[in-house]
Amino acid sequence: MSGDQIIIFDTTLRDGEQSPGCSMNTREKLEVARALVELGVDVIEAGFPIASPGDFDAVRQIAEKFGDRTTICALARSRDEDIEKAKGALVNAAKRRIHVFLATSAIHREFKLKMDKAQIIERAISSVKMAKEFTDDVEFSPEDAARTELDFLCEVVEKTIDAGATTVNIPDTVGYATPNHYFKVISYLKQNVPNINNAIISSHCHDDLGLAVANSLAAIEAGARQVECTINGLGERAGNAALEEIVMALRTRADYYKVHTKINTQKLYPTSHLVSSITGMKVQRNKAIVGQNAFAHEAGIHQHGILQERSTYEIMRPQDVGYVGQNLVLGKHSGRHAFRDRVAQLGFQLDDAATQKAFDDFIALADKKKEVYDSDIVALIENRMEENGDRWKLISFHTSAGSSAIPTATIQLQYLEEPVLCDAAIGDGPIDAVFKAMERIVGLTARLEQFDVRSVSEGKDALGEVRVTINLGGRHFQGKGVSTDIIEAAAAAYLKALNKAVSAGVTA
Amino acid sequence: MSGDQIIIFDTTLRDGEQSPGCSMNTREKLEVARALVELGVDVIEAGFPIASPGDFDAVRQIAEKFGDRTTICALARSRDEDIEKAKGALVNAAKRRIHVFLATSAIHREFKLKMDKAQIIERAISSVKMAKEFTDDVEFSPEDAARTELDFLCEVVEKTIDAGATTVNIPDTVGYATPNHYFKVISYLKQNVPNINNAIISSHCHDDLGLAVANSLAAIEAGARQVECTINGLGERAGNAALEEIVMALRTRADYYKVHTKINTQKLYPTSHLVSSITGMKVQRNKAIVGQNAFAHEAGIHQHGILQERSTYEIMRPQDVGYVGQNLVLGKHSGRHAFRDRVAQLGFQLDDAATQKAFDDFIALADKKKEVYDSDIVALIENRMEENGDRWKLISFHTSAGSSAIPTATIQLQYLEEPVLCDAAIGDGPIDAVFKAMERIVGLTARLEQFDVRSVSEGKDALGEVRVTINLGGRHFQGKGVSTDIIEAAAAAYLKALNKAVSAGVTA
Repeated sequence: MSGDQIIIFDTTLRDGEQSPGCSMNTREKLEVARALVELGVDVIEAGFPIASPGDFDAVRQIAEKFGDRTTICALARSRDEDIEKAKGALVNAAKRRIHVFLATSAIHREFKLKMDKAQIIERAISSVKMAKEFTDDVEFSPEDAARTELDFLCEVVEKTIDAGATTVNIPDTVGYATPNHYFKVISYLKQNVPNINNAIISSHCHDDLGLAVANSLAAIEAGARQVECTINGLGERAGNAALEEIVMALRTRADYYKVHTKINTQKLYPTSHLVSSITGMKVQRNKAIVGQNAFAHEAGIHQHGILQERSTYEIMRPQDVGYVGQNLVLGKHSGRHAFRDRVAQLGFQLDDAATQKAFDDFIALADKKKEVYDSDIVALIENRMEENGDRWKLISFHTSAGSSAIPTATIQLQYLEEPVLCDAAIGDGPIDAVFKAMERIVGLTARLEQFDVRSVSEGKDALGEVRVTINLGGRHFQGKGVSTDIIEAAAAAYLKALNKAVSAGVTA
Repeated sequence: MSGDQIIIFDTTLRDGEQSPGCSMNTREKLEVARALVELGVDVIEAGFPIASPGDFDAVRQIAEKFGDRTTICALARSRDEDIEKAKGALVNAAKRRIHVFLATSAIHREFKLKMDKAQIIERAISSVKMAKEFTDDVEFSPEDAARTELDFLCEVVEKTIDAGATTVNIPDTVGYATPNHYFKVISYLKQNVPNINNAIISSHCHDDLGLAVANSLAAIEAGARQVECTINGLGERAGNAALEEIVMALRTRADYYKVHTKINTQKLYPTSHLVSSITGMKVQRNKAIVGQNAFAHEAGIHQHGILQERSTYEIMRPQDVGYVGQNLVLGKHSGRHAFRDRVAQLGFQLDDAATQKAFDDFIALADKKKEVYDSDIVALIENRMEENGDRWKLISFHTSAGSSAIPTATIQLQYLEEPVLCDAAIGDGPIDAVFKAMERIVGLTARLEQFDVRSVSEGKDALGEVRVTINLGGRHFQGKGVSTDIIEAAAAAYLKALNKAVSAGVTA
């Protein structure tokens, strides 16, 4: 690796997934991991294996599937059992990294860890050594580094590099740093840690003050050669530094930063879209690089300029980040071959049976809708993926509602192969009535915590995607449904969430 | 003003309103202006009076209503007619500023303006002088300053200060600057413009690379004493620097920046919410300061720390920014007095008739819903505000839909006091059927461009807010509706948009 290449360490699947409402199942994590590999990230932090059996399994599958192409990293606290779990999850990856962390700031030492400086150093060294027995590629993070006393930080960094750490990450865990402050911390390490050139310095910034990207770039200016970041800036609280912003800032201002990444920038927009769709964390319209307005020029004064010469107001071209807009790709008469090609271009790898189902759905939609967009196809495929393993199936529904009628729903559900059950309920509206009728049949009563609808594409006949989060006795379950009829989409989403609860063993 | 106070110049109503999908009517602009005054901003850029009669009128009303408490600013190109319009709009404001701009970068001179350097200087001087005849408070912006040759920029700044500019703004119009680059531009001006201390230096940054806030803070470090910013970072393309992030970074890191603002930070969250609700531009959950997750700590490792000592992971308290969450405030038995107080606390000033209507709506909602939240009350009031001036009224609707039925809607509408009209239509779902039945009666056929639903609060019986954007012959109209029944909310929103089209003179 040349000195001017920045290692992109993506932690969407670990720090990103930790943020409220962002949890993904293993299938979804594999989908995101595949997109990250194609995007060209250097390291994928796939999870925190000790956190749960599900986390362990996801890291294990990602390591197995992608560990030959991209370095797969697992997180561990500085504890033997954490490191053992990380090893177990990574065993089948050719390119594997263990990321060990331990807090070093005074406030964390005193209140969280109740350990003194000597104990911290001893623990950090022994953890790095233990990880090093399993893989040469070991990263150490002194948690809350940005608030740690500089001399102690230097000592921790020096000792962990001596113990075998090949990457030392300097996290601004609470999002407190300013660009100049963070620049100075990294510069101080460069100047005062004698063995610093034996490891890569990494940045890890949080956006609590809106400075995560600027701080990451300041770290690079000071000599950091790895940045930890996430797609769409997902992560705890206000999130982590956004991968797409860092990459495009480095690229657009290559004249200034004089470094490069291996990211295929044309995959930025599709990857952002995939992550947003899977997690349900929408990107705001005025978000840099991947927001709906990022490349929109509407004001008259700007349009005039743009018409004369694009560079008057445009520093990046939409196609540089793979922004395709609502491009029309297929119509009713597109053949199976064209459809299969487009699905592959959209990044899905489907077997023959899944391709056939998706094609059938596409033809049915093309019958209803004149124009079928990429986003419609993605929604259809994701909708099918959601279906596997459901115990309750929706057989039929009917609703009646109006200003002078009491909204009423009639529902038929079937549990596995048992007889079809039917019931009705009233509600505040037809969707509420549908939910209540379903609950009567299934025998569960949930609290609806979130209900989101978005149009997948344009037009009155657009596919609508409904996403619900329900709360059953303190446990949260999500469901998603897609249809041109919002009631049908809501019914599918609610039933999906109920099915997840049933699978998880929730009873009345 | 002391040297360590930063002037907060809010341009939500000008640069923010310029972004696609953000346009506001005069009533909405007055509402936002009132919130900005209460938030404590120093300058409100209220609009660009030459742009349209609507813009002119909004600036005029804001100037009249708030120009005694807060400086009201109007934008003008360096043209006589622009400055005349700005004067006309500001005439009734005690505290008034004219903001004149003219591009100075080579690319803008050559392609957009087709003027040479001497012509630019001459035009800038004469415009500033013309504005100065009307008010002492004149701001000059060399557009695309961040890409302008430094020596020419110094010359323009010096000459416009000589001509009477009291504020010189250095816009990074295309969002191309990095923090260090921007710091150096401002520092260079401080060192090389002989009369620089006769004016306030201002920053104006765009977020195309995710650096708007960091660039604004870098400008302050270099000596700028005004920042131009917007609520929620609204603005052209990826938007402007977010006011709430700049203010909270300066406050949280007062140890570092050693400056302060006059902002009442506890109004940040309510103001953000108001602007998001009025413009329909949602804030992403992982947005700094005002996102839904900004203060959420869900990961086990963090919760452990938080339980021990809040400052392990929390650098700001939610109450510092006025974050109230979904706080339960009123129930069915709350009296009119408590309701009126709460409405005032939420920032609305309603006359008796409007209070009565809002209270009636509240009681009706409290009948349906056990828990009424602040957000419900805001939605009800805004919904009523939307109603004024509608020609078509919804008398009744009925829908029938289901998996084995063709979705059908029956609608009654009334135009002013004419006889009630009734028609029916089928659709892809009941909402589509409602829209089609309405279009049959009104006699217009629109293209639905956007359809958004959000839950106003929690629970299956939550109020849902539907927002639609329709396209009629290339013109865009928005409508919003609120109900516990999504079909009713959608019907109200669509009819609102059709009513706006009818008012604007659109015919079939």
